[in-house]
Amino acid sequence: MNKIYLDHAATTPVHPEVIQAMLPYYTDFYGNPSSVYSAAQKAAAAVAEARESVARLIGAAQPQEIIFTSGGTEADNLAIKGVAMARANQGKHIITSAIEHHAVLHSCQDLEKYFGFEVTYLDVDQKGLVNPAELEKAIRADTILVTIMLANNEIGTIEPIKELGKITRNKNICFHTDAVQAIGQIPVDVNDLGVDLLSLSAHKFNGPKGIGALYLRRGTRIVPQMSGGAQERRQRAGTENIPGIVGLGKAAQLAGLNLSKKMEQTRRLRDKLIRGIETKIDRVILNGPRDDRRLPNNVHFCFRYIEGESILLNLDMLGIAASSGSACTSGSLDPSHVLLAIGHPHEIAHGSLRLTLGLNNSEEDIEQVIQVLPGIIGKIREMSPLYDG
Amino acid sequence: MNKIYLDHAATTPVHPEVIQAMLPYYTDFYGNPSSVYSAAQKAAAAVAEARESVARLIGAAQPQEIIFTSGGTEADNLAIKGVAMARANQGKHIITSAIEHHAVLHSCQDLEKYFGFEVTYLDVDQKGLVNPAELEKAIRADTILVTIMLANNEIGTIEPIKELGKITRNKNICFHTDAVQAIGQIPVDVNDLGVDLLSLSAHKFNGPKGIGALYLRRGTRIVPQMSGGAQERRQRAGTENIPGIVGLGKAAQLAGLNLSKKMEQTRRLRDKLIRGIETKIDRVILNGPRDDRRLPNNVHFCFRYIEGESILLNLDMLGIAASSGSACTSGSLDPSHVLLAIGHPHEIAHGSLRLTLGLNNSEEDIEQVIQVLPGIIGKIREMSPLYDG
Repeated sequence: MNKIYLDHAATTPVHPEVIQAMLPYYTDFYGNPSSVYSAAQKAAAAVAEARESVARLIGAAQPQEIIFTSGGTEADNLAIKGVAMARANQGKHIITSAIEHHAVLHSCQDLEKYFGFEVTYLDVDQKGLVNPAELEKAIRADTILVTIMLANNEIGTIEPIKELGKITRNKNICFHTDAVQAIGQIPVDVNDLGVDLLSLSAHKFNGPKGIGALYLRRGTRIVPQMSGGAQERRQRAGTENIPGIVGLGKAAQLAGLNLSKKMEQTRRLRDKLIRGIETKIDRVILNGPRDDRRLPNNVHFCFRYIEGESILLNLDMLGIAASSGSACTSGSLDPSHVLLAIGHPHEIAHGSLRLTLGLNNSEEDIEQVIQVLPGIIGKIREMSPLYDG
Repeated sequence: MNKIYLDHAATTPVHPEVIQAMLPYYTDFYGNPSSVYSAAQKAAAAVAEARESVARLIGAAQPQEIIFTSGGTEADNLAIKGVAMARANQGKHIITSAIEHHAVLHSCQDLEKYFGFEVTYLDVDQKGLVNPAELEKAIRADTILVTIMLANNEIGTIEPIKELGKITRNKNICFHTDAVQAIGQIPVDVNDLGVDLLSLSAHKFNGPKGIGALYLRRGTRIVPQMSGGAQERRQRAGTENIPGIVGLGKAAQLAGLNLSKKMEQTRRLRDKLIRGIETKIDRVILNGPRDDRRLPNNVHFCFRYIEGESILLNLDMLGIAASSGSACTSGSLDPSHVLLAIGHPHEIAHGSLRLTLGLNNSEEDIEQVIQVLPGIIGKIREMSPLYDG
């Protein structure tokens, strides 16, 4: 049975060139880059090169604006808590959206609980879009930070970050975006977007797990959240994860190559999958936009009268890996906060399926899913007391 | 020229078996362990096995007491800030020592600066030892945490953690130890030591960089410092660094094998090196204890009339990698806080050299160092205006 992996939003296979780039830093160049001897300088040079690759991928003016972290979650925590603690004397109000990743939402909630901050959670429309006018209205004299994701990890909505960034810039408010799901899928340029901070994670674009980065625009002050040594210009302590950083750098290089061609291919498979499902299965709801405001690799449906979990188990038996939504919240019985925020009642939110495409997916993979999914949905619906056939 | 690596306290080469154990989790089993499909369950099982290996190495009663982090620095930050925030309503006083790693010292300073905590920094004696009687005296009604390192990263002093643990336990005060330098060098058992929290880092004992763990005794409450997904029993969010965790698990297994034999070998080389230096070079000071209270792999000297940096550069030219002290503070012009704390004036503290042994060091390596070092020291001293020949 051919295995089909359609959960690239959860994590991606590591690109063989990434592994090859990393390996020498496990076997030969293991020096601590903070050391003075020449053996360690090879590691330090590799870190510098990776920093440049990441800066280039997101259009950062200087490599020094890249701070390596242990992943997207750490980058989000560092951005939000770091700015909040640095600016607390100017104000204690933060604006975010209702559909952020939990790394953002829970960081905001930490600030409410332990630091006396107030947070406004902007509603989104039925497609998951934040309305710039609502951001403008929510801004107060004591607003010090706005954090809105670039692309949603469940339903693939691409937020109007550029428009939002103009508003924050006019009011001199710090602007962070969680770009974990966007990097490698769409072009990302921090200056075009007008963001001051941006989070990314290597394992979402064929890099290794356990490494990510925070873009920190020059002049933006944060309070470090991990204290100790003087690494990362004193913004993030801890011995550098050299192989991980090298892997992130290589993944960033690869992500930048032929991006528009890759987007074209992914988009074609995505649309074929969406069309196939909508044609062959009734009473389905495509979540997120249908136009350019949808990630090229994201397909997300709700199927009425169904538990998402049972679809996944049936697909798994056929060798197809998929997800009901965020991997980070699987195991929880609560419906997705994203699906509730776009207006679904609990019973519909529970019947969700996310299929996210990646480099290795083929036309045949998509045809296979379109072929088996109607039968699975039909079988599960037959067992549902709510389904009227 | 034969390369000789004598900076194992900064970082260690990754053991070939560790790399072999990690590789499949880059190439084949890349699933997100939070996912439900079977491909991801292989990753989840590997994480569970690694957790057991780490628990076994340090004598933890349950694998669930191990929380994976991005390294020792994160583990220290999580332990100290996590306990402080969880217990702030019981008191805001912390006790540590003057010779802790900066990950501990700066975490304590963060709590002073941002959270209104008071910290007592216990003095140490000339060998770098904390006096249990002084800990007892320093404890106040509002003391909520004591954090003392198991072994010092510069001078190799092993602290009397067991004695200190009896004191904290009697007073029902939380006790954390930074064991980053001790793991893999000496036997470590959390129940024998009587600690509630313990930090470790894989790359200090032939595991990969970018991964570590915090031991958190069952029932000890912390406030998570990285918020987001529900990973690590909600104590540490972020997609698990599977290859890193697997590598840490394998390194823990290897570290536990034949430990007493390895200690014996390392200790013999260490003592040969100390004897050689003391015999061949005058006006040298061995820092740290000479007995069982010294790490088996640590040699640390001060050479009068000398800058440590110039010794390192001369050794490097001969292919010998060494350090003046902590890698995390290299590049700084300040003398080591550890050397000042054991009573050295600035001019002596500046002339330090740390040689730390590892698995691959041979008798010949040591002989080579003993052969070349007197010439290097002599040459540098000749150029010193303070040296009177």
